[in-house]
Formats: sequence, C-alpha cells, structure tokens
Amino acid sequence: MVDLNSDLGEGFGTWTLGDDAAMLRVVTSANIACGFHAGDPATLLRTCADAVRSDVRIGAQVGYRDLVGFGRRFLDITAEDLRADVIYQIGALDGLARSVGGRVRYVKPHGALYNTIVHHEVQARAVVDAVVAYDASLPVLGLPGSAFLEIAARAGLRTVTEAFADRGYTSAGTLVSRRENGAVLSDVDAVAQRVLRMVTEGVVDSVDGVTVPVDADSVCLHGDTPAAVDMALAVRAALSRNGVTLTPFVS
Amino acid sequence: MVDLNSDLGEGFGTWTLGDDAAMLRVVTSANIACGFHAGDPATLLRTCADAVRSDVRIGAQVGYRDLVGFGRRFLDITAEDLRADVIYQIGALDGLARSVGGRVRYVKPHGALYNTIVHHEVQARAVVDAVVAYDASLPVLGLPGSAFLEIAARAGLRTVTEAFADRGYTSAGTLVSRRENGAVLSDVDAVAQRVLRMVTEGVVDSVDGVTVPVDADSVCLHGDTPAAVDMALAVRAALSRNGVTLTPFVS
Amino acid sequence: MVDLNSDLGEGFGTWTLGDDAAMLRVVTSANIACGFHAGDPATLLRTCADAVRSDVRIGAQVGYRDLVGFGRRFLDITAEDLRADVIYQIGALDGLARSVGGRVRYVKPHGALYNTIVHHEVQARAVVDAVVAYDASLPVLGLPGSAFLEIAARAGLRTVTEAFADRGYTSAGTLVSRRENGAVLSDVDAVAQRVLRMVTEGVVDSVDGVTVPVDADSVCLHGDTPAAVDMALAVRAALSRNGVTLTPFVS
Amino acid sequence: MVDLNSDLGEGFGTWTLGDDAAMLRVVTSANIACGFHAGDPATLLRTCADAVRSDVRIGAQVGYRDLVGFGRRFLDITAEDLRADVIYQIGALDGLARSVGGRVRYVKPHGALYNTIVHHEVQARAVVDAVVAYDASLPVLGLPGSAFLEIAARAGLRTVTEAFADRGYTSAGTLVSRRENGAVLSDVDAVAQRVLRMVTEGVVDSVDGVTVPVDADSVCLHGDTPAAVDMALAVRAALSRNGVTLTPFVS
Repeated sequence: MVDLNSDLGEGFGTWTLGDDAAMLRVVTSANIACGFHAGDPATLLRTCADAVRSDVRIGAQVGYRDLVGFGRRFLDITAEDLRADVIYQIGALDGLARSVGGRVRYVKPHGALYNTIVHHEVQARAVVDAVVAYDASLPVLGLPGSAFLEIAARAGLRTVTEAFADRGYTSAGTLVSRRENGAVLSDVDAVAQRVLRMVTEGVVDSVDGVTVPVDADSVCLHGDTPAAVDMALAVRAALSRNGVTLTPFVS
Repeated sequence: MVDLNSDLGEGFGTWTLGDDAAMLRVVTSANIACGFHAGDPATLLRTCADAVRSDVRIGAQVGYRDLVGFGRRFLDITAEDLRADVIYQIGALDGLARSVGGRVRYVKPHGALYNTIVHHEVQARAVVDAVVAYDASLPVLGLPGSAFLEIAARAGLRTVTEAFADRGYTSAGTLVSRRENGAVLSDVDAVAQRVLRMVTEGVVDSVDGVTVPVDADSVCLHGDTPAAVDMALAVRAALSRNGVTLTPFVS
Repeated sequence: MVDLNSDLGEGFGTWTLGDDAAMLRVVTSANIACGFHAGDPATLLRTCADAVRSDVRIGAQVGYRDLVGFGRRFLDITAEDLRADVIYQIGALDGLARSVGGRVRYVKPHGALYNTIVHHEVQARAVVDAVVAYDASLPVLGLPGSAFLEIAARAGLRTVTEAFADRGYTSAGTLVSRRENGAVLSDVDAVAQRVLRMVTEGVVDSVDGVTVPVDADSVCLHGDTPAAVDMALAVRAALSRNGVTLTPFVS
Repeated sequence: MVDLNSDLGEGFGTWTLGDDAAMLRVVTSANIACGFHAGDPATLLRTCADAVRSDVRIGAQVGYRDLVGFGRRFLDITAEDLRADVIYQIGALDGLARSVGGRVRYVKPHGALYNTIVHHEVQARAVVDAVVAYDASLPVLGLPGSAFLEIAARAGLRTVTEAFADRGYTSAGTLVSRRENGAVLSDVDAVAQRVLRMVTEGVVDSVDGVTVPVDADSVCLHGDTPAAVDMALAVRAALSRNGVTLTPFVS
C-alpha cells in the first residue's frame, strides 16, 4: 500500500506546465501550487476541481515568492515572513479547494524551500509553525531524516515520508546531487521496477550498487514532460500489476 | 447604533500607509487588504492580530491584482478570473485571521473594483459568486443602490450599506465625482456633525444644499494621513457624545 | 517587398511560449517582449542574441504591466504612468539588445494596449510621447487607420502599417472581432495565398466576400503553436516563390 | 573634495519612502532605484528629472527582484540571470534618465546584493559583466576591498569607494554588523565630525577606539527619515564650513 504524489497547478496565466489531466489519473495525492512560485487563482481553482472529481487528495505546495525563479532559488527570508507567507498560501488554496467541495489535506514545501528545510532549522521551524497555526491536524510531506520532518514531529504534526521515483540515491540513502552523474534516471522500466522494490521491500540500489533502506509513505512522480507522464503511468501499472494498493495517505 | 469601518493593512514590505494602531481605537470593523492591491502576509498577520486584540471585526478587502496602481485602476478581467481571485484573497486573509483567533467576517471590495461593481454587472456577479462559493453566510459591504449589493441580495447574501464621512453627495444621493468641486470635505467639525446627522436622522446635505436621504449601516473613515485620523477621532467622539452606540454590524 | 513580423521572447522563467528559433528563420522583424506582459531578462537577452545572429530586426513589444493576464486585459492607466512604463520597457530591452550588438529598431504595442490605442487617444498619445522622448527616430508598428498611427505621424514618427495573416477582415477593412465567426483562419494554404494577394495586390477578401483594400508594410505571423509555425513557413514560402522580397522595414 | 551619495526613487506606486527633494539639495550623486527592489517607472522618471534639475549625477541602483523584501534578502540567483537582470535595470533607468536630458553615470548595487558581492565572487562577476556589457565606461560604486570592486578593476572598470556616515567601523576597518552594538550612530554632530575626519584625514575611530584608515571617494548618506535628512544636512554643512569641496565623482 502506497501513495503516489505529483506537483500540479504549476501554470501561470497563459503559460502552462505539465499534463495535469494525465497525472490526475496516476496519482492519489496532488501537490497543488499556491500562487507564490506558480499558479494563478483561476488555474488553481480548475486544478482543485479536477482533483476533487478524480478523488485525488489536495495538498498545499507552498514555496518562496519567486515566480520568475519558479521557487527554485534559495531566499534568505526571516522566520516571521516565511511563517506568514506559508499561512497565506495554505489559506488561499484551502479557500479555492473548499469552494469546489474539497479542502487542503496536507502541506508539501516546494523547490528551494523543500531543499532548504532539509537542514535549515529556522526556516523549517517557520514552516512547521505555520502549519500548526493554520491547522495542526494537517500532515506534512517531506524527506525522511530532514530537519523539517523532525521538527514537525516534535511539534505534534503527522509526518509523511516520500521517495523519488526517478532520482539516484547515495549509499548513505540521500539523493545524488543534481550536479553529479546518476542524479536522474530516465529508463522507464528500470524506474518502475525500482519503485516496486522501494514499496514492497523498502530498499533501493544506490549509485554505488549498494542496497540501502528507503522509507517512503509516498512516492513522488514528475509530470512536466510527455516522457515523465509515461514513466508515471509505468510506475502505477507496475505497482498495480504486483498487487500494491494505491491509497492516499489521508483518508 | 452604527458601525465605523476603515481600510487597514495597506502597507507592503518596507512601505507603510496610514496609522493602523490609531484607527483600531476608532473603528468597529477593519477592511484588511488581502495582498492583491496591498498587504504582504506578515503585515496582514500583524494587522489581524491587532484587530483581534482590539475586538474589531475583520473584513476581507479584496481588489484587483495591481500593486503598483494600488488597485485603483479599472482592469478588464473576466468573470472567471475575478471570481477565482476573490476566493483566493478571502481564503488567504481568513487563514491569517484564524491563526490569531479571528476570522474574516465580511467582504468589502477595494478601490477601482468597488467603483466598477457599482454598475458593472458581470464583475459584480463574479464577486458575489466568489463570496457565495467561499461562505454564503458572510455579509458584503458596499454602496447603497449599487449593482453589487442588488446582485448580492438576490443571491441571498446579507448586504450592509455604507456612507462616506468626508465625501460630498449630489442631490440624487450619489457621491460627487472626485474630479468636481465638493468631492472631499476637510473641515473636521463639519464632517463630525454631518456623520452624526447621517446616523441619527438618515440624511445628508448635498453640494447643492438639498437635504437627501442616506442609507448607512456603516460609515467609512479614512486613516491614511494624520488629518484623516483626527477626523476619524472627531467623528467617533461626536457620535459617542450624542448617545450613538458604536457596534460592529456582525456580532 | 514586404516585412514579416512576429512576437518573440514571450516566456517567463521556467515557462516557455512558442518556437522562437523556428520563427527567427521566417520573419524579418521580431517584436520582443519587454518584461511587463512577458519576458524575464535572461530570456529576453537570449532572444535578442538569437535575433542579432539571425539578422532579424529587434522591436520593443511594450505592454501593460500584467503578467498573469499576459497584457491582454485593458487597464485604465493614466497617461503619465503609461508614458513612463513605455520608456522603461524600451530602455530595458534596448540595453539588453545593445549588450549583444543589436538595438531596438522600432516599437510595437502588445495585446490589450495595441487594441486600446486603436481608438483611445489619451493612451495612444502617451505611447507616442514615450517613443518621441526615448528616440524620435524609432518607427512605430500598428494598425492602419488607428489613432495610434495617426497621432504618431502628427508627432513626426515614422509609421509602419501591418496586416494579419490569419485574421478575418470585415468589408469595412477592419478585423473581425474574436467573438464572431471568421475571426481566425486556419487553412494554411488559403492563408498563404491570402497574404500573397495582400502584398502583391493590396487587397483581401472580407468575410462577406467583398474585396477590400489592405495597407500592409508588414505582415504579422503567429508562432505560438506548431500549427502557427507551419502557417508562417507556408506564408514565407509562398511569398518567396512568387518573387516577393522579404525585407525588414528598417535597414 | 568628496562626493556625497544617497538612495533615491525608492517609493512604489502609492507608497513613498524618504524625502528625495531634501536629499537632492544635499548630495552630488543619486543612487536611483531601477524597479526591482523599489521604484515604479513614473516615480523613477520624476526622480531622474529632479536630479537633472538639481545637477545631481544619476546612478543605477540595481538590486534583486524582490519588492516585498525591498531587495534586502539574499537570493541564490545564477550568474546568467543576475547578469541579465542588471543589464535590464540599467537600461530601463538609462532610458528614463535620457528622456529628461540626463543619463546613468554609474552603477551601485543595492541592499542584499551590495552585501553579497562583498565576498560572493560569482555574483560579483555577474554584476561586473553586466556593467561591462552595457557600457564599460560606467564607474561602479562599492565597498573598498570588496570582491566586487576588485573584480571590476580587473575588468577595466573605474571603481569608486565609499564610506558610510552613520555606520560603526571595526578596528579591521570593516563595518560593524547590524546585529551588534555600535552598528549605527545617531548623534548628528558626532557623525558630521566623523565624516569631516574621514574626508580630510582619511581615518575613522573604530568601535574599539582605534583610529583606522578609511578609503572614501564618496560618503553614503541616508534620507529615509526626518532625522536622517537632518544628519545629511549637518554633514554637508560641516564639510562646506571646513572648505571641503563637494563634487560628483563623475564630471
């Protein structure tokens, strides 16, 4: 039993990104942008409505206020400002989701914020504080072992771990840096088998050929290119074929 | 018995506007910006917290997405986009308000949007649709006789009318255009007496010297200059002195 | 002899739009966005460099400050603000263009601004004033008969008229509204023949079947979809095959 | 002989900051914002016109694209993006300046960008590359000993050093961190005498009481509060009274 998640709603006005309709047929949880790194309100509203129709859970994908950088650039924001930015984003998306019969069910940070709070305790705590202040019953989705999930757990939030379908892992169980070889995998069948093993055996083969444990309540899939959608479909098919139930981590 | 309202939270980052602390001692309802025409999340959060502490009701002051124009320029936005923009803004502010023990209790459009939906039925309906979709129990604050309030009433929303303390009225009971003489009044005592008469007798003297009826559940006060704050204080004092109870229109 | 123009550089950060590389092999003049309706500086710099390499003239496509609306929504901006916005945009693009050995050679308004100044004299004059203030030797590209070109001519600017390859014309010689049938043509060969006739005979068949005169120093082509690129290629081929020289309107 | 510089044009739309008119009577060089951390085009145009009328030199104060953070937060931007952002900003301001008979005469980075490129060589080089690409004859204004000025000098740019009138210095000659005591001085007369000594003797007393050399072609003054304007006036008066000629560093 596992959850599949993906980033959705990441267009902005006339600009589109990824094939949200296709991904809503694959995933069980949708990390929907909140307008700061991507996502104008009309796009977000349609994405929420589509998710509700597809019985896919809605998560708030909060990020730095940086449209031109797509939230992928570290910003040295204060805890006070970040906390307020995160509450604002969750509230905005929750309003849109509720207007179509859904609601925000979890929070997942995006891009540079996601990466930063793996280790940056002040920003990690600010995000946790925001979730607690907004609704302490919302789970947070993040990297196992991250400062973010540790601080969230201590604050009483439910934490949900994720693995990445198409990312290389080191023998220490961390992700291979995107600047190094083996960071991103592109063989569809290999990735599908890899995810199957992550889920059924709890292990993954590292770039060095070592089998390492991997902790994944959810597996993150990309949908921003046609090839990415094909890979996501292959992962879902492999899991289903092997009797793994696909279930959102929130009921 | 009357409500006093004013615009608050209209700074942005390092830029401030008006004396919010002073106005929170005058008004019973605070129209707090939602980030589209003004208001960064940290400023909005502090403003919500101050309003809660002052026992002042929080309204969502929704506007066009136009920081550089402060929401004061008509934008030919589609109904679909406007509806989503308004839901997004209400949700964002409501999230911030709830995190400090308050919540959004009403909606008041800002600036050019306020003026546009006096007559622009498509945009008026989009704002009404947004409020209904977000929370149909929220009252809307607007100009008596406006398309906005008429459409809102037909949609089942509670409508609250407002008069303007320092604006001139025509003998038809409408506001004198800001391009004409007598549009804005500056004599503090005259304004205070004027508001007292609006509230106790339901009339105002027009620029042409005709006494016309005025319908005001709430009176709008400005707080963006020291002189405006003085006027607001004088209005409040005159009302109190004459036995008018100041009460928010939502309990 | 005719000029072909198209809109380029209309991505923003991670978001892309259209196939600029393909269009640079078709057109002689590139209307490059300036950052207000589209175009982040790094994208604009690459587009300018590509235009210089392709010996395509660079025009500043100035627009309303409205990323989320892609500059396609009328904004009721003052003449003073619009004039400054246009100078700012031309200067910014000119700086980028000069840094790669080119420079802004003409100005073409974009989207809702383009449509507005067909008739809105105050905004038209503001754009003209901006061009005169920046560099009175720059031609402006616009719709024949528009207030914009008339005011520009009176101000001493060189005016360049354009026709639209794939738009329907009324028997009055104006564009068919996008809300009506026949507004946009999609038959590649028919469009190619139509442009050939515009250029060689100076006429176009209206939606009502009347042959009307059309004044076109330049023909505008779209490049925002694969089909649009195919059409642009077909137009260029038809013109070349029939001995029409493709030459930018600025040397 | 010394130059006095200050930040101007740092409002945005309805929001204002500082007393630009007063500062134009004090300084010889104006660091004018370029729209990324502050400054809408209409404000910038007026500021340029005022600077020209006051015979004050115009510098482009380039910054990170971060209105809400006023450019005061480090942004982990790539060299390619930063270089393009800086060219765009200089070009935009230069266009506005030229339209009123002036032009950009130098470049000074703002806020977090200024502080970052004291040591961040990649970003420092990107700013230098941008200035060289735009106009290699433009001087750059910065902190003595910074990576920025060193890289600029190696690239052939003229470098201009500045000292800060109201900032504390360590005995190593660097600025006292704003997080420590003695970072900012507020005694008007003491600051005026301090600047006089910086300029005439080339030294400043550190927080530890050590007299250290200070290299200042220009002295930076603040104008964002009434007290700051008073201090600026006092500095100017002290210099004039003691026979120091106030002269812009560009003719």
